[in-house]
Amino acid sequence: MNYKITIIGSGNVATHLASVFFNRGFEIIQVFSRNIENATVLANSVNAEAIDDLSKLNINSDFFIISVSDSSIETVVNSMPKVAGIVMHTAGSIGIEVLSKFNNFGVLYPFQTFTKGKTIDFNEVPILIEASNVDVLKSVELIAKSLSSNVIEADTIRRKNVHLSAVFASNFVNHLYSIADNLLSLNDISFDILKPLIKETTEKIMKMHPIQAQTGPAQREDYNVIKEHLKILEKNKNEFDIYKILTESIISYKK
Amino acid sequence: MNYKITIIGSGNVATHLASVFFNRGFEIIQVFSRNIENATVLANSVNAEAIDDLSKLNINSDFFIISVSDSSIETVVNSMPKVAGIVMHTAGSIGIEVLSKFNNFGVLYPFQTFTKGKTIDFNEVPILIEASNVDVLKSVELIAKSLSSNVIEADTIRRKNVHLSAVFASNFVNHLYSIADNLLSLNDISFDILKPLIKETTEKIMKMHPIQAQTGPAQREDYNVIKEHLKILEKNKNEFDIYKILTESIISYKK
Repeated sequence: MNYKITIIGSGNVATHLASVFFNRGFEIIQVFSRNIENATVLANSVNAEAIDDLSKLNINSDFFIISVSDSSIETVVNSMPKVAGIVMHTAGSIGIEVLSKFNNFGVLYPFQTFTKGKTIDFNEVPILIEASNVDVLKSVELIAKSLSSNVIEADTIRRKNVHLSAVFASNFVNHLYSIADNLLSLNDISFDILKPLIKETTEKIMKMHPIQAQTGPAQREDYNVIKEHLKILEKNKNEFDIYKILTESIISYKK
Repeated sequence: MNYKITIIGSGNVATHLASVFFNRGFEIIQVFSRNIENATVLANSVNAEAIDDLSKLNINSDFFIISVSDSSIETVVNSMPKVAGIVMHTAGSIGIEVLSKFNNFGVLYPFQTFTKGKTIDFNEVPILIEASNVDVLKSVELIAKSLSSNVIEADTIRRKNVHLSAVFASNFVNHLYSIADNLLSLNDISFDILKPLIKETTEKIMKMHPIQAQTGPAQREDYNVIKEHLKILEKNKNEFDIYKILTESIISYKK
């Protein structure tokens, strides 16, 4: 494919996207970052030019991919010249309309958590796409399908809902791991003890519905154990309240 | 090993334990269940005798493993004759003292979630053990080590804390998957879309501390996104409250 791609941003998502596009044979022509050192590191890894000034943007690129923090997207858009290519952002919770000053625009949201230095099998990552019109959608779909076999069209409202579900299933889940770790370390027990259980809990819901997979004192409505757990947590108000609300929620989901 | 084992119970844990003991060469002499059909199914699979009356217990067994629901342990203990062998229960949140009518007793708590029909690599399962005295502990340790390479001595208080941490890291986590599924199905989106993300979230904490792995709007203190998410959840009071308390908790853990 002869498409030229410009990457705007140098964070986790920008870095993963640039590297996957590069490996799939796209030409990355420029990488922008406010910090020229960050731009240079990423640009060098994908044979591109590094820039730290959006007025130096090569306007002949086919795709401009804005992959910066949610709160910076608007600023970036305001600083960009009007370009003929397709401008996209990669954010789950930002509407497509933030890009409406351009003629052709879209969203390419890779639905995954990216960690510096940890590679991801991009082919399995669901990619949610949206575009300003049907023709642009075809182009966005084309490059999305070159990244992943799991491309889903979703408008801004659906994308925001998907993002919200991820906050529960990933961000909040990770926080529960932090709480568990905290409780264990109060007893000088390593978090490692939880790893086989966490692994199995995850494997279960790959095969069965989470409602069917639910176990534990709340699911059994074992109020003796619940009471004892609340007693242990009595001095940790935050963890006490979380235990209570999630226990009540599990019971309410049975109804 | 020539030890004779008696299994009291026929649920998930009893079934998994009986099968692993049998496969590791122990002789299972009897399986008790109040329901003779359940006792028979399990007993047949491990070449044992099925009984549904605790007065028929062969008192010459070396180990009596009580693996029934937490709330039934006391009733079972009361119905058992005094035996010379070691009596153990397998519960995370029940004290060892429930067995104190016996001369030799202990706890063997496999720290894992067991699902009917799904085999587990028992060798990786942490097993928490406790015993009425040092000699009994040696015997309990011996049979625990024949099940798993990860045997940990823990008294009742520590065991209860470990169990509590599992409620957060497994039961509550699974419930967050149910909530995410619920939010997705309101938008006609399959839970499958979350699976790569859930897999990666779990893989991350196998390698890094959960505090370091934390991402998302709460971690970034991105109040615009948080506000928008709460707006989406406005009509689901339960999910709204859970979002709020977990968001506040993530922020408080940063301090």
